[in-house]
Amino acid sequence: MTRTLLEDVKKIFKTTSGTPFLIPTTESALTNTLSSGDRIVSFLIGQFSLLWIDQQQCLNFNVDVVESDWGQGANLEVLASKLAADSAHTIKAICIVHNETATGVTNNLAAVRKILDHYQHPALFLVDGVSFICALDFQMDEWGIDVALTGSQKALSLPTGMGIVCASPKALEASKTAKSLRVFFDWKDYLKFYKMGTFWPYTPSIQLLYGLRTALDLIFEEGLDNVIARHGRLAKATRIAVEAWGLKNCTQKEEWYSDTVTAVVVPPYIDSSQIVKRGWQRYNLSLGLGLNKVAGKVFRIGHLGNLNELQLLGCLAGVEMVLKDVGYPVKLGSGVGAACAFLQNTTPLIASRI
Amino acid sequence: MTRTLLEDVKKIFKTTSGTPFLIPTTESALTNTLSSGDRIVSFLIGQFSLLWIDQQQCLNFNVDVVESDWGQGANLEVLASKLAADSAHTIKAICIVHNETATGVTNNLAAVRKILDHYQHPALFLVDGVSFICALDFQMDEWGIDVALTGSQKALSLPTGMGIVCASPKALEASKTAKSLRVFFDWKDYLKFYKMGTFWPYTPSIQLLYGLRTALDLIFEEGLDNVIARHGRLAKATRIAVEAWGLKNCTQKEEWYSDTVTAVVVPPYIDSSQIVKRGWQRYNLSLGLGLNKVAGKVFRIGHLGNLNELQLLGCLAGVEMVLKDVGYPVKLGSGVGAACAFLQNTTPLIASRI
Amino acid sequence: MTRTLLEDVKKIFKTTSGTPFLIPTTESALTNTLSSGDRIVSFLIGQFSLLWIDQQQCLNFNVDVVESDWGQGANLEVLASKLAADSAHTIKAICIVHNETATGVTNNLAAVRKILDHYQHPALFLVDGVSFICALDFQMDEWGIDVALTGSQKALSLPTGMGIVCASPKALEASKTAKSLRVFFDWKDYLKFYKMGTFWPYTPSIQLLYGLRTALDLIFEEGLDNVIARHGRLAKATRIAVEAWGLKNCTQKEEWYSDTVTAVVVPPYIDSSQIVKRGWQRYNLSLGLGLNKVAGKVFRIGHLGNLNELQLLGCLAGVEMVLKDVGYPVKLGSGVGAACAFLQNTTPLIASRI
Amino acid sequence: MTRTLLEDVKKIFKTTSGTPFLIPTTESALTNTLSSGDRIVSFLIGQFSLLWIDQQQCLNFNVDVVESDWGQGANLEVLASKLAADSAHTIKAICIVHNETATGVTNNLAAVRKILDHYQHPALFLVDGVSFICALDFQMDEWGIDVALTGSQKALSLPTGMGIVCASPKALEASKTAKSLRVFFDWKDYLKFYKMGTFWPYTPSIQLLYGLRTALDLIFEEGLDNVIARHGRLAKATRIAVEAWGLKNCTQKEEWYSDTVTAVVVPPYIDSSQIVKRGWQRYNLSLGLGLNKVAGKVFRIGHLGNLNELQLLGCLAGVEMVLKDVGYPVKLGSGVGAACAFLQNTTPLIASRI
Repeated sequence: MTRTLLEDVKKIFKTTSGTPFLIPTTESALTNTLSSGDRIVSFLIGQFSLLWIDQQQCLNFNVDVVESDWGQGANLEVLASKLAADSAHTIKAICIVHNETATGVTNNLAAVRKILDHYQHPALFLVDGVSFICALDFQMDEWGIDVALTGSQKALSLPTGMGIVCASPKALEASKTAKSLRVFFDWKDYLKFYKMGTFWPYTPSIQLLYGLRTALDLIFEEGLDNVIARHGRLAKATRIAVEAWGLKNCTQKEEWYSDTVTAVVVPPYIDSSQIVKRGWQRYNLSLGLGLNKVAGKVFRIGHLGNLNELQLLGCLAGVEMVLKDVGYPVKLGSGVGAACAFLQNTTPLIASRI
Repeated sequence: MTRTLLEDVKKIFKTTSGTPFLIPTTESALTNTLSSGDRIVSFLIGQFSLLWIDQQQCLNFNVDVVESDWGQGANLEVLASKLAADSAHTIKAICIVHNETATGVTNNLAAVRKILDHYQHPALFLVDGVSFICALDFQMDEWGIDVALTGSQKALSLPTGMGIVCASPKALEASKTAKSLRVFFDWKDYLKFYKMGTFWPYTPSIQLLYGLRTALDLIFEEGLDNVIARHGRLAKATRIAVEAWGLKNCTQKEEWYSDTVTAVVVPPYIDSSQIVKRGWQRYNLSLGLGLNKVAGKVFRIGHLGNLNELQLLGCLAGVEMVLKDVGYPVKLGSGVGAACAFLQNTTPLIASRI
Repeated sequence: MTRTLLEDVKKIFKTTSGTPFLIPTTESALTNTLSSGDRIVSFLIGQFSLLWIDQQQCLNFNVDVVESDWGQGANLEVLASKLAADSAHTIKAICIVHNETATGVTNNLAAVRKILDHYQHPALFLVDGVSFICALDFQMDEWGIDVALTGSQKALSLPTGMGIVCASPKALEASKTAKSLRVFFDWKDYLKFYKMGTFWPYTPSIQLLYGLRTALDLIFEEGLDNVIARHGRLAKATRIAVEAWGLKNCTQKEEWYSDTVTAVVVPPYIDSSQIVKRGWQRYNLSLGLGLNKVAGKVFRIGHLGNLNELQLLGCLAGVEMVLKDVGYPVKLGSGVGAACAFLQNTTPLIASRI
Repeated sequence: MTRTLLEDVKKIFKTTSGTPFLIPTTESALTNTLSSGDRIVSFLIGQFSLLWIDQQQCLNFNVDVVESDWGQGANLEVLASKLAADSAHTIKAICIVHNETATGVTNNLAAVRKILDHYQHPALFLVDGVSFICALDFQMDEWGIDVALTGSQKALSLPTGMGIVCASPKALEASKTAKSLRVFFDWKDYLKFYKMGTFWPYTPSIQLLYGLRTALDLIFEEGLDNVIARHGRLAKATRIAVEAWGLKNCTQKEEWYSDTVTAVVVPPYIDSSQIVKRGWQRYNLSLGLGLNKVAGKVFRIGHLGNLNELQLLGCLAGVEMVLKDVGYPVKLGSGVGAACAFLQNTTPLIASRI
């Protein structure tokens, strides 16, 4: 089973040359490719990129943080200037969170690759994809990504407990000389067992492997591209509803809009955490809190995984009622109606039922 | 476990003197209490009452059918006149479907009892409650009902496969002389094993017993009266949406409105089965077909069981899109908005989350 | 799914011309083929045949009971003489329990067919196969059986709740004129829905259908003939152990030995129900009680369904300890050792692991 | 739920002062308490202690390995001499695998503590208890153990994926100054969230938490001391069978016998891996291979977790058949009979069934 899982996992990363590892931690992306003291460029655009930077600093890398306003994407101009100045190639890796869940921002990875190529810079290109692989278009080979990672509990709709890491040949090469301390999650051990055909240096979580098999089967049955299109459609419907309510998207430009989560800015006289609390207490609705810099200012609507049009519309109706509950003058039905208008035009028939 | 199940099942029938049987068929209500050739009065108000009458005729009873227009409740005036004329007490039983799922009609059982009492008529009072027990208020003892029955797959939200029958002392007494042929589902066998404390003359479906335990626990945790109030709230929201769409309820008077299902009449230029088909094919929405006399003319929205406000609103949004799909000029968001306005005023906080 | 289930169910009955019904009761075998007052010949050889005869009498058939000593098979000589004397063909059906679980007796169905053929007698041939189909060789077409029935919870290793009935073309023909009262389980309703391709006149127990799919898959994966051979092997090992303990098989002749259950006769100074109780209380071992005429005199070891060699040997070891517990002078290890000697010679390699 | 889980987990470690962490790796026991370059004494007595030593060396500790013959326990005389010579207290920790699964050896932790106390040596006392907690008696507080760890998939009978680590106050104190690199599994993060009452710095594996709840409930229902006694009884029965077969226990002295696994030495003319293979291929029996130095020479019978007498006896019967298969002259039934004789004397009644 592991053999076919590994083959199929490559499809969701859109890679043929990458090597996947089913490893329950994301730390391994860094420790397998870098050495203590290595300089890395890392983008800070929200809470989840902040946490990754924390981890990078804990692991004793020399982290060159490029910060943007929360609500903006990674500042690629700064990247360009840093690469331009680095003819000595002291920068060993570029670390970027593809989809910043805290602010609903998706970064442009193709553009990062273009910049790296422009300067012919050999830095590794490491991507945290926890919250989007299988939900957004992601092309590991096409975009020259060296390590990408995701988790079981996001777009795969599995329980928590499994990380999936995919490494390019260049990353594997780097792992041979990377000196970071690593024990359980050393790719070397895995590669040894891959060769032997037994695949696992340690006992894996069997139930998650069966879960992954089923999750992949469901995705392939719907079609990976259809899954991604569905995420795009539901995200667009959500943004249309937000606009109909007269509220603002935390994401500052359309090019950064995330198709897995929408962070909604509330008027200053409302505490967004009250919206989350109220939704949970009255309507069994799970919204996301604003985190850190945007705490109290935004709430988040997640729209990823095994979700369909009517489930989203139920959620949007719930948000409307909560907004009214907390004193925001929403016209009930306005967001749902606007979203329906879009969805009624764009939702395809279900292939298996035609 | 069976001992406590039987005790708890009595609570959902609101009876202390009744005797419950967990029997996988509803035929037993008739065969255990009546003899071949017995005269019974039975109300025909829709497809499910029709099927019950079929069964009664198959079992060789002398069925006195009282028909109403589909969309109306049982004609109790005719009942009164029949009882008035029956001083010889040739009528052995009154058979009534409490909640006619085909047309969304709920009959007034208290009124039936009042009429029986008025004429001091000893006929048994048999009620088909398949689609509503645990969803609508039902008071077996208060209303003097002799046999009531329900199924696992409706308001209990269990899989199919278990019938629940509850018999009054008078019904048990009748079973001693009833001559209808019955083998597996003879109450006598059950009563014998009840006395022995082993409860089961045959091997029961263990997994459904565990399911029933859980279903009852969930209902009692929410509170049976809260469950019934929730059904009332969701049903009212549905009717408000139907009105907002400019459509008519198949149920002709408010006194008959069912809180578990709403049958919606479509304009003559639309075939309601297209609505059902479209909902299924495009939005993964399960609506009910119009049956028999109302085929093509109504579609049905079920709102019973383990269902909350946002799930219903998602369903209503789906109906709006389907109506638009089939050419009905609905204003998208109108029904959902009207339902939200009602629900935002009436939905209580979730007790366990305050 | 139902379509393929029905096709596959025919394989376990070894029939190509039969029509299967997934119906949760066995009564239907009788009511669909016979009319009240019909004369039937029925064999009484133990508790389960007794219960079937009870049912036949409840259903108002004129039952001609042929009794044998408990521990013997059906008395086919009496059958022959009855058929010989019945040139008027007043006998409408022969009813036989293939495998009498109470005494571990398996009847010879091929011999019954031979006798019927010899007298060119048109009586229907009805077989209760509850406890053996998929465990013993059963050839519905070859043996000219008109109705065979089994249950989900025996050799199929499913939960209780589903009956499987298979009817020959002759039985279907008979059902057109049979006058027994039947409502829910009338084949006619099923045949109507089979033709329409929707298969179910009523909502079936979906979870049991999925279970049946899995049970059949497991059986076909192992190979039906291998499953039957495994039952034969385990049964033989059990009988060898019983002999090694110095105890007697309740089944009086080898030709009647059942491959699904062994009823063991205990010495007169031991109450067999103490053995069953002790096994349950001390070793978590489920043995079967002696029933009715053999109560206190035999205990039963079931060996059917999803069971392998080591599970059986664990059970046999448990029986040895219980025998010692209740004062029978067994040599510990004697039965297990003898069974091992047989199994070590005869158990094949597991095909999927070679 | 986490709050009560943490409280209950302390009971299986028999500690009141310890702090438990539900962390999916065992590395954390070392990295949270020690710094790179620290001298530690570690006992090598089999494959699993070898793997732990590998890990210790990977983590850059200065490992003082004390090796014994495989089949012997930890050499505590060498420990005593090392401690005696270490008046400077350069030894920071003693690392010991309590139960060496490869050879069926259980070390005497109370004796280790006595030696540490005798020399008034402040070294931390770290114990790998992966394969025995809940199966063997383990007294964290009484024996002054500083860190103990176990895994979900052993005596708790859960799926893989959760580690359980328990730290003494002294270990927590040490973690404040320990300089080993650690990110995800830093106790500090957990302690912070314990104080806040939300418990989890990262999303845990919810399904394993529910599993742990059930596993603990089952253990407490049986009684932890009864569980441990059962393991003792089944282990003793296994050793009696081994002796009856004329084979030797790999464990060289009775004081080291493990109650969770028995490693059996085969005669030189047999390859023990053939025994394991044959058991798997013919009888669906999972035995353990001999590892590393004892490869080909021993096979292992596991007897831990949710296992009862009859399951073990089935397994022992299987081993007998396999031994015969590979040409060892075993008397079939000899081991099972001997084990039965012991178990029939010692197995208590099941409390809930009396």
